[in-house]
Amino acid sequence: MRIAVLGTGVVGRALSGKLASLGHETWLGTRDVAAALAQTEAARDGSGTFAEWHGRNSQVQVATFAEAAGNAEVVFNATAGTASLDALNRAGEENLAGKLLIDVANPLDFSKGMPPSLSVCNTDSLAEQIQEAFPGAKVVKTLNTVSAHIMVDPGQVAQGEHTMFVAGNDGDAKATVTEILQAGFGWRSVLDLGDLTAARGMEMYLPLWLSVMMQGAKTPTFNIAVVT
Amino acid sequence: MRIAVLGTGVVGRALSGKLASLGHETWLGTRDVAAALAQTEAARDGSGTFAEWHGRNSQVQVATFAEAAGNAEVVFNATAGTASLDALNRAGEENLAGKLLIDVANPLDFSKGMPPSLSVCNTDSLAEQIQEAFPGAKVVKTLNTVSAHIMVDPGQVAQGEHTMFVAGNDGDAKATVTEILQAGFGWRSVLDLGDLTAARGMEMYLPLWLSVMMQGAKTPTFNIAVVT
Repeated sequence: MRIAVLGTGVVGRALSGKLASLGHETWLGTRDVAAALAQTEAARDGSGTFAEWHGRNSQVQVATFAEAAGNAEVVFNATAGTASLDALNRAGEENLAGKLLIDVANPLDFSKGMPPSLSVCNTDSLAEQIQEAFPGAKVVKTLNTVSAHIMVDPGQVAQGEHTMFVAGNDGDAKATVTEILQAGFGWRSVLDLGDLTAARGMEMYLPLWLSVMMQGAKTPTFNIAVVT
Repeated sequence: MRIAVLGTGVVGRALSGKLASLGHETWLGTRDVAAALAQTEAARDGSGTFAEWHGRNSQVQVATFAEAAGNAEVVFNATAGTASLDALNRAGEENLAGKLLIDVANPLDFSKGMPPSLSVCNTDSLAEQIQEAFPGAKVVKTLNTVSAHIMVDPGQVAQGEHTMFVAGNDGDAKATVTEILQAGFGWRSVLDLGDLTAARGMEMYLPLWLSVMMQGAKTPTFNIAVVT
């Protein structure tokens, strides 16, 4: 498939690198290509500066948000949640219409320090805001409940015996996402939570995730398994 | 121990019945004892009216909120989250001071239909509001993340291989709660999430719990296991 990943942070790098390695024609979208490649700050996951990462992942084509989305059939939103609507507006409604838009972002607001709060929650979600802003796109929420490295390699945790959620209003879109998750990334257990209102719960899980990461499991390399 | 459970709903019934069966001197607190025993509505868990349930659990002593709390060393808040502060005010600050106050409630607001929203979340939690209102009590949040029948019998799910969380500001209070959970109720995995601000995440997990219950697992008899 032709896939765009919007966002050059650790999530965008993990997703685009994996998708390209699976043989997909992959674009990584950013606001300003020259500025991204000129960044001198190393990412917190050890992948270095964006230019260093791209030197090792040159099969990923770097482009503007609009070019990346325009070339793609499937678009991942891997931008920071509080910047996602702006990034998607730059990608352009015409480049998202009719496409599968996989939202993996969390609307975390770090402006008041740790722990972050959510910039939208309870009676709304980032995924619903994106769907409302881009009614022609088929928005599916997934992957926001785990660290970037687990998104694309779930076997790092408990031999892959744990749960990924999907939510969205379009059944075919969710089926495509589930195929990417299972056949592409190696997820064994994908739980369909229904329509996009379920994204509220998936995003509101983040404060619990942060507590488990910081105080409970004391590692970001964990997930939850739904068990009955 | 002398234990009070506040609230005659399915959670209060499950907790008080189990605690009494473990040999604890157990009071079940309610706003109006005569009114509770005169209720004609059967509970949704199949335990019948409150009088029918009490007929089978007569070792549990029914009392007012204040009498129950006054008699106890440990108090469980098992009232509806939106009514908890009122119930605890009726129990009385003097009857809660210096005591372990185990908050198992969820601040779910059903007034706008399903799915419910939370009446407090994100930058605050019910547990923190209770701690602020009753600074002399040692508030510990736990058990709010599972159905009542699993709270006191975790072996019903996945042979007990799943996770319960605790959060609170007093280490000794959390140790006592962990002892009740493990030795009393049979929980194997109890994860300490730190101070009471972690109750935000535990309460904000409820929308995800509701989605899994209604659309994913399609049963309330499930839990999550934190796996690494």
